[in-house]
Amino acid sequence: MKANRAAWVKNRKGIVTQMHYARNRVMTGEMRFAAGREGLNPEFVRSEVARGRMIIPANIRHLSLEPAAIGIAASCKINANLGNSSVTSEIGTELEKMRVAIRAGADAVMDLSTGGDILGIRRAIIQASPVPVGTVPIYEALHRAGSVGKLTADGILEVIESQAREGVDFMTIHAGILSRHIPLARKRLTGIVSRGGAILAQWMLERGEENPLYRNFEKICKIFRQYDVAFSLGDGLRPGCLHDASDRAQFAELKVLGALTRLAWKYEVQVMVEGPGHIPFNQIEMNVRKQRKLCSNAPFYVLGPLVTDIAAGYDHINSAIGGTMAGYAGAAMLCYVTPKEHLGLPDIRDVREGVIAHKIAAHAVDIARGRKGARDRDERMAEARFRFDWEKQFECALDPETARAMHDETLPGESYKEAAYCSMCGPDFCPMSISRKAFGKHCGSRKAGRKAGRRSPAAIGV
Amino acid sequence: MKANRAAWVKNRKGIVTQMHYARNRVMTGEMRFAAGREGLNPEFVRSEVARGRMIIPANIRHLSLEPAAIGIAASCKINANLGNSSVTSEIGTELEKMRVAIRAGADAVMDLSTGGDILGIRRAIIQASPVPVGTVPIYEALHRAGSVGKLTADGILEVIESQAREGVDFMTIHAGILSRHIPLARKRLTGIVSRGGAILAQWMLERGEENPLYRNFEKICKIFRQYDVAFSLGDGLRPGCLHDASDRAQFAELKVLGALTRLAWKYEVQVMVEGPGHIPFNQIEMNVRKQRKLCSNAPFYVLGPLVTDIAAGYDHINSAIGGTMAGYAGAAMLCYVTPKEHLGLPDIRDVREGVIAHKIAAHAVDIARGRKGARDRDERMAEARFRFDWEKQFECALDPETARAMHDETLPGESYKEAAYCSMCGPDFCPMSISRKAFGKHCGSRKAGRKAGRRSPAAIGV
Repeated sequence: MKANRAAWVKNRKGIVTQMHYARNRVMTGEMRFAAGREGLNPEFVRSEVARGRMIIPANIRHLSLEPAAIGIAASCKINANLGNSSVTSEIGTELEKMRVAIRAGADAVMDLSTGGDILGIRRAIIQASPVPVGTVPIYEALHRAGSVGKLTADGILEVIESQAREGVDFMTIHAGILSRHIPLARKRLTGIVSRGGAILAQWMLERGEENPLYRNFEKICKIFRQYDVAFSLGDGLRPGCLHDASDRAQFAELKVLGALTRLAWKYEVQVMVEGPGHIPFNQIEMNVRKQRKLCSNAPFYVLGPLVTDIAAGYDHINSAIGGTMAGYAGAAMLCYVTPKEHLGLPDIRDVREGVIAHKIAAHAVDIARGRKGARDRDERMAEARFRFDWEKQFECALDPETARAMHDETLPGESYKEAAYCSMCGPDFCPMSISRKAFGKHCGSRKAGRKAGRRSPAAIGV
Repeated sequence: MKANRAAWVKNRKGIVTQMHYARNRVMTGEMRFAAGREGLNPEFVRSEVARGRMIIPANIRHLSLEPAAIGIAASCKINANLGNSSVTSEIGTELEKMRVAIRAGADAVMDLSTGGDILGIRRAIIQASPVPVGTVPIYEALHRAGSVGKLTADGILEVIESQAREGVDFMTIHAGILSRHIPLARKRLTGIVSRGGAILAQWMLERGEENPLYRNFEKICKIFRQYDVAFSLGDGLRPGCLHDASDRAQFAELKVLGALTRLAWKYEVQVMVEGPGHIPFNQIEMNVRKQRKLCSNAPFYVLGPLVTDIAAGYDHINSAIGGTMAGYAGAAMLCYVTPKEHLGLPDIRDVREGVIAHKIAAHAVDIARGRKGARDRDERMAEARFRFDWEKQFECALDPETARAMHDETLPGESYKEAAYCSMCGPDFCPMSISRKAFGKHCGSRKAGRKAGRRSPAAIGV
């Protein structure tokens, strides 16, 4: 099946959100396409979108999009952040990062540019991207205004509308951080670590007014439903270190995000909710449960979480650990973290490392939650291992290129591609080689395996 | 406190195991030293060693050892495997791998050499190592015998005794795989993937006799108690892929390992039990609980577990994910896996990457289990971040060198070491810089933090 968005969106008018159609029992091309990718029943996808537990971010202006579902009943997704800062990077690099990220397995990308040619970079990314593109419009609003003091509600709405018109599929809107929450964050070790959250806090403190995104939330809903932009409700008060995790500030904001979720649903706008951050491993499940309860099961989109503060240089691993637990507990999408987190803007290599680490996490989640077909590739790999079919092993690997290069480091010759050992154990000590000799052909059949790992979404406690 | 093993062991005679002394209420230098490192009460450590829930592997001939405790009440440990195969590597390289592993945080090392100068490599490692050294004596026994057919029980016991005399602190003994288990492994996708397990299975099939390590288990106990070698009861039937995880073969062997644990304790020999392997994330906690129950709470030492089969090239990340869950559920030590797993023998860079990934996992476990002081360094890091004290941040990082190098990739100048931003967000968009301005000095105090993360071992459900 091919995505044919130009045809699908041609006659859409008025409220054009997937949620609107789903509630009216209209099966869209997007739902059918996303269901096909997941191996899910399209009618089931429609019902999930209707009740808000699944979203298909799909701006009607983003014609190159191949729609995908984000929700607990779908496979676990990962997002890669792109975008420059005023210090470094430009358009060609950002496009290349996007291609590398998608090739390595990113299911969504966010353009977080804050400097230079914001508009040019975003347009290029939307045009080229087959995956949903997200933004944080407050960045461009601040860039245009020049300083927090000059930011106005109208200026922000203008940016939101212009980005919606350009085809952005989902936008981070930090509407949940309210002036009454700011004192709660004063008790923290690292204050506010969300860029959007910090900008809005400063604005509220300077003006003595309530969060303009909160006050104008319904206006934003009205813009979003015209283009089908999905909310990614930002967690401006996410903890920036373990010490600040699961504190009053964080959960006070989450409660507001829950109320905003239900308000957006009244406008038939799709919603996912952003989550932390830095969270000790033992608090992750509780955090996911809390979000599901407070936000009426809207998909949870987590940044990490990081399970320690001291892994600078290796935060992609740190985040993959927390992300696996979060996904297992029910989070729908993991935002990647790169090795460069806390240290600088990621380059192309960092982007690739970040995506692969989180692809491992998301795949482990799909297996652990018993999602349909999740283990098929693992079983092909296991078979290939037992048969010493090295070419097949490289093919089954998440990153075939790296797997082959590592194997060939010690045994580069073509003849070793059929050898019944590798340099780890050598020819005399390879356990699989020994047990193959001992067992003959009894092992290594996938017959039993084919039955495993197949559980209906209803059975996995969505 | 300095380890002074020569003095501590000088007058020991007869049964010289830590368990023996602990049961007789003798406080050894080793217990006191290990307790000091953990910030635990020495008397508590003694009682844990007496009941077998904690071990201090400390061969009386290993004089350079700085003893450490392995057990659920101690911090989570990590082991790095060293050793050559017949295909590659030699003594200088293995020693350098050891130094790199320990510098990066390895708490134990195993010499798994199977070819070349096995004896020379082992002696050099024991002499140089301040951490406990483990081996798998069946490798040398097979190397000496030349082929599985020529292996004899006496030959194996001879190797075990000679290695004990040399100062090996713990040995993997695959005494739990019995002839009746072998048919159970025939149904698997990848058969037997433990080298020791495969060797013994072949031996049993060829001879039609029971596992010689099982039949001679009490003889081994008598050797071990003369030197205080700890058992690391090997899991010869650990699953080699997700499909084979938690199957009858695996748990049938585990049950035998439980019985052998209690038998070793009769001889006052210290025991830990090895565990899988490849296990889906959702089955990890169950596996740890089962081991604790079947093996009467002897420390669990897991290899991974890997939560997917398709991460070749990135199995250190895969293993760190599973290891965190295992440690959180109660495993005492994680055996590292390097990026080269399934592909070839790790080189020095792989060893380093493997250790750091598992150090992140072990540290996350200590935080999640509320172990004493576990979060102190994280809080110093958080403070340093909020203060933009870059030098302090590098210092607090698990790998300062890499953290500094990554930061300096985009902002190398000395002046940036005091800049209130990095290249991620640039000067105008740094959230911490903004919230520092907004909050003044209210944030960033560790006062509240100092109280957190301090729970007595009794409170964490050991």
